[in-house]
Formats: sequence, structure tokens, C-alpha cells
Amino acid sequence: MSEKTKVAIIGSGNWGSAIAKIIGSNVQEIDYFDKEVKMHVFEEIVNGMKLTEIINTTHENVKYLPGHKLPPTIVAIPDVVEATKDADILVFVLPHQFVLSTCEPLIGKIKPNAVGLSLIKGFGEENGHIQLISNQISSILNIECAVLMGANLANEVAEEQFCETTIGCADPKAGKVLKDLVDTPNFRVTVVPDRQTVEVCGALKNVVACAAGFCDGLDYGDNTKAAVIRIGLKEIIRFCKTFYPEPRISTFFESCGVADLVTTCYGGRNRRLSEMFVKESTKSFTDLEKEHLKGQKLQGPQTAQEVLVLLKATGNETKFPLFYAVSQITKRELEPHKLIDYLRNEPED
Amino acid sequence: MSEKTKVAIIGSGNWGSAIAKIIGSNVQEIDYFDKEVKMHVFEEIVNGMKLTEIINTTHENVKYLPGHKLPPTIVAIPDVVEATKDADILVFVLPHQFVLSTCEPLIGKIKPNAVGLSLIKGFGEENGHIQLISNQISSILNIECAVLMGANLANEVAEEQFCETTIGCADPKAGKVLKDLVDTPNFRVTVVPDRQTVEVCGALKNVVACAAGFCDGLDYGDNTKAAVIRIGLKEIIRFCKTFYPEPRISTFFESCGVADLVTTCYGGRNRRLSEMFVKESTKSFTDLEKEHLKGQKLQGPQTAQEVLVLLKATGNETKFPLFYAVSQITKRELEPHKLIDYLRNEPED
Repeated sequence: MSEKTKVAIIGSGNWGSAIAKIIGSNVQEIDYFDKEVKMHVFEEIVNGMKLTEIINTTHENVKYLPGHKLPPTIVAIPDVVEATKDADILVFVLPHQFVLSTCEPLIGKIKPNAVGLSLIKGFGEENGHIQLISNQISSILNIECAVLMGANLANEVAEEQFCETTIGCADPKAGKVLKDLVDTPNFRVTVVPDRQTVEVCGALKNVVACAAGFCDGLDYGDNTKAAVIRIGLKEIIRFCKTFYPEPRISTFFESCGVADLVTTCYGGRNRRLSEMFVKESTKSFTDLEKEHLKGQKLQGPQTAQEVLVLLKATGNETKFPLFYAVSQITKRELEPHKLIDYLRNEPED
Repeated sequence: MSEKTKVAIIGSGNWGSAIAKIIGSNVQEIDYFDKEVKMHVFEEIVNGMKLTEIINTTHENVKYLPGHKLPPTIVAIPDVVEATKDADILVFVLPHQFVLSTCEPLIGKIKPNAVGLSLIKGFGEENGHIQLISNQISSILNIECAVLMGANLANEVAEEQFCETTIGCADPKAGKVLKDLVDTPNFRVTVVPDRQTVEVCGALKNVVACAAGFCDGLDYGDNTKAAVIRIGLKEIIRFCKTFYPEPRISTFFESCGVADLVTTCYGGRNRRLSEMFVKESTKSFTDLEKEHLKGQKLQGPQTAQEVLVLLKATGNETKFPLFYAVSQITKRELEPHKLIDYLRNEPED
């Protein structure tokens, strides 16, 4: 390449700002990257000032990642077309409900050979059916789209605590460039070719975390919780094998697999609110979201419903007893302690 | 078989008594088992009475599993030869330091076609080198010996909380019989052929739990702990591939693998004392064992030293940076926070 590789980041929340800190620093070190990184920031007014102006003058996202300086070559831009038009790499890191509305203005406006990297967790949806978000981005913009997932709480990443992550990218050359872009001594990247596996793990872990939270709410012991997490992992693997091409078994041992699942089942808000859901038996998840998440939606219960639609449409309910039970319990159509009855019917592979 | 299959249990501690509860009940239900199960109990005086007499009259092991009735057909016998001489299945469930001294009197006294089932966690040792305990039993007594391992805290098993376990048994016929013996709706057994994998997982998880405890002691976050557990799992897999024949990758997804590892790294005394070891930096593990375990030895630090001997003897130290670091930190020959430097050198497989 004679031209430098230009990078744009689409999204500027907690995770977007944390990854911007890494990317903004790495592009300074590696010669083939352009040193300026444009970041699309959804404009809002914070303390009477535009958030883009705050970021571009103080180099801090005071709303979503306070206390951490971004490299000054991260340039916040409110217009998404302007932010992305010259980019060779588009890093998508925004809530999944905004993917379609954010991508549509970009159609025909981005470089045709640009490569996407999605950090977005959860499934998309089309005509009532699950879609991988990387597939949606890929088909709307007609570009390749890799994914990055792992046990990566944003604040800990911003604090440069040691952790690992997984990039799923079918093309090894593009995978190498994406690894260069985000790998650091404290954010260790492994690249695997089966991006669907990586992305599915990132979505389904929240369903398993609901089951783990139910166990905690029912005061079950360590043995039972370990069994639930293990069975959840087995169902994630079975899901990938059933619905996606050629998952590699080794990918489930990467950060996106077992590591992210485990932290989500011991920490994390899906687990926490699922525990409350059992203990406060008159409340729905909507009630709990209002009380504890300012109305933000929890991913686990929502993903469980999306998975249920797919399982029903394909006649696979009995192959996934944990996913099925979670989809029913979260709607209070099944009592939480019935989870175990379902797990006893877990098929052997 | 015209004769009924007779079962003997060698050991009567917390775990031995919990498994006796299951076995004593299952043999009543399944026709081909003899209904009487002899249990070798190391004789001791409890409240002025012999423990064997207490068990045989009250059907409760008041010292090691108080509050749980054993089936009355469990017969406690102080003499190990007497307890085992007619048995077709020998269930070994005693502390690993007593294996050799318990097996030696049995040489030539047991049925030649008897099959062993070891529930003993940890490595044995011979001439300074790691030995699998199932191999030791097998070679001393000249019998086949399967193993049973999983996320199975004894008290929770005795309370009949739902959990899973793994039997490693090369012979599918014997595996089927052993599964019949211990499987219940709340103690779900999976049989796999690679018993070495099952047994190695049960020993090495405690080394990984030390590393997890160091993270907790250093107040590292969830990301780092998840990375440590994941890297630990990778090293367990690599260890099996390096030193034992044909581990199956699927076995690491069984209860003996990922499930037991995870509970041990979040709960469990190896994790707990390793956290203390970091926070109370003047103390050795021997000090902490005296203070908190009445002098009982913690398995993790001991296993780490045994592993170190093997890694050194075979020139494999750099292939197992987590195991190596734990072996040094537990002796205070490396500062705990240096663990992370070692993990950065984790090889890719």
C-alpha cells in the first residue's frame, strides 16, 4: 500500500471510547496506519457543550469514559458519512438497535474495499429471524465484516488491565491488519477464521447468564451452577454446529468462548437481574430494567426470545433445553426451579 | 452374570460417604447388583464409640457426613481385606497419600477380574515423578481402574442438588456398569474413554485456582481473571496432549473439565488461600494451612511443584508459563504480580 491505511470508529460509548484509546495509540506506533482516526460521535449536549467539541478539545469522553484521555489524533465527528468516507477500516461499536439506521446513510459513500470490524454484541433481526450483525453490515454496505469479542469489560480495558480478546476474520491478511490495529501487551488478540462462532458466543452467553442468575436466585450451590454453565456452553456449541458453517471447536476455548461466558455468569448484569427476577417474584424483567437499568434493555431475555423463534421455526426446541427454559422463565411462563427438569433432558451429542 | 455384582467402597470421608449414599441406593434399584455394599472405614473412636459401629447402627457417618442417612445395606468394615475380598467393583475414595498403604494389603486378596473406580483427586508420585493414581492402583493390584471426577462438592451431592460428573473408562462395557452404579437424576454421569484426561483435569485445576486466587489477591478485575482461567484451561489441554495418549478435546467440555475448573477458580480453598497468600505477604502456604486448614495440605501448591519437576525433566517449562509461574510464586521465589508477565509469553497452539 502506498497510501496509509485509514481507520474510522463508528460509535463512542463506553466500549467505543475504550477501544478508541487503544486504536489511537496503536496507529502512532505502526507505520502503515494513518495517524488520524475519525470517530463518529452521536451528537449530544453535555454540561452545555457539544460532546464532539468536548472530545476534540479535552480529549476525554466525559460522558461515557470519564477519567481516561484519548490520544489527540482521535477526531470526533458528528456526521457519520464525513467520519467514514475515506476509511479503509470501519470499526462498528454502537448499540445493536442503531446498526441499520447508522449504516443506511453510508451506502455508496464508503470505500468499496473497506473492511468492517464489529464489536457489537447481540443478534440483529430481519423478518422476525436472527441475523448476525456482521452479516447485516456486510450485506448493507457490501463489504467484508470481521468481529471482535471477548471477556472485555470496557472500563477494565481502558485501565489497561491485562485481558484477552478474539477476532473472527475469514481472510488471514485482513485478520493480521486488524490484529495490528488493536493488539497490545494488555489486550492480547487471537485471530480465528470462524467469525460466526465468535459472534454467536457473544450473543448467547447472556442467555446462559440468565440461567446462572436463576440458580443464584434459587440459592443453588456451586455444583449446580457449574453444571448450568457447562450445559450452556454445550448448547452454544450445538447452536453453532446446527445453524452456522464449520465452527471450530478450538474457538470455544478462546476468550470469546469460555472466558467471556464465565465472567458473564459470575459477574454482569444479566446474571444479577436474573437473580433478582427469582427473588422478587412479582416483577417482570421490564420492571427490573426500569428500576435498575434506567429502562435500558437487558440482552439475555431478549436474545432468548429471538433464539426461541429460530428453534421453533426449525423444530429444534428439544435440542436446546436450557435456551428453551430460559425463554419461558424470562416471560414467567415457567417457574424458575423447573429449569433443572429441562436440563435433565439435555441431549448427549 | 449369574452371580450378582458386588461393590466395595474404600474410604469413608466426606466424599466417600456422599457417594456411598448414592451407591447404596442405586444397588437396591438395579437387579444385577448385590444389595449389600461393604465400606472400608478407617477405624477411629468418635464420642467414645467405634465409627464403624456408629455407622452400622445409626446409618450415619456422624464425623464426616453428619445429617445424612446412609442406606442400611452399607456395611462399615474396619479391615480393608475383609471389606474388599468378594468385590467385583472397588470404589477408591480416600486421601491420595493413603493409596499405596491401603492397596498393598490387598495384593493377591481381591478378585482378579475386579474393576477399580478412583474418585481420588491429585497426582501420585513415584521416584520424584508424577503418577496418575488410577495407574498406581492398576499396577499394584493388576486390575483395570476407571476414574470419576467433576464439579462435585460432597455436601451438595449428599443434599441431592443437581450436578454432573464424568467417568473416564477405556472399556465401554465396564463404563456402562459404573454409570449404572452412580448415575441418578441429580448426579448425571457422562462416560468418556480417555480416563487420563479426566484425572489430569482433576489434579491441575487446583494449580489454576492458585493463579485465580493471586488475581483476586492483587485486586485484578474480571477480565484478567477470565484470561487466567482460560489460559489455565489451555495449559491443562496442552499438558494432556504432551504427556498422555490421545486426549479427546470434547472431554474438556465435560464436568471434569471446564465445570470443575470454573467452580474451583471462583469458590474453593485453593483460590481462597492463594488470595490470602498475596494479601498477607509475610506468610508461607504452610503458615496459611496451619491457620486455616488445621495443617491439612492444600493441593494446588503441592501439585505445582510436582508439575514443575516434570516440566524441568522434559524441558517444557516455557510451554507452560502459568504452571511455571504458580510453582515459583507459591514458594515466594517470584512476586505474584509477575504472573501476568509470564502469561504474555503463553504460546499459541
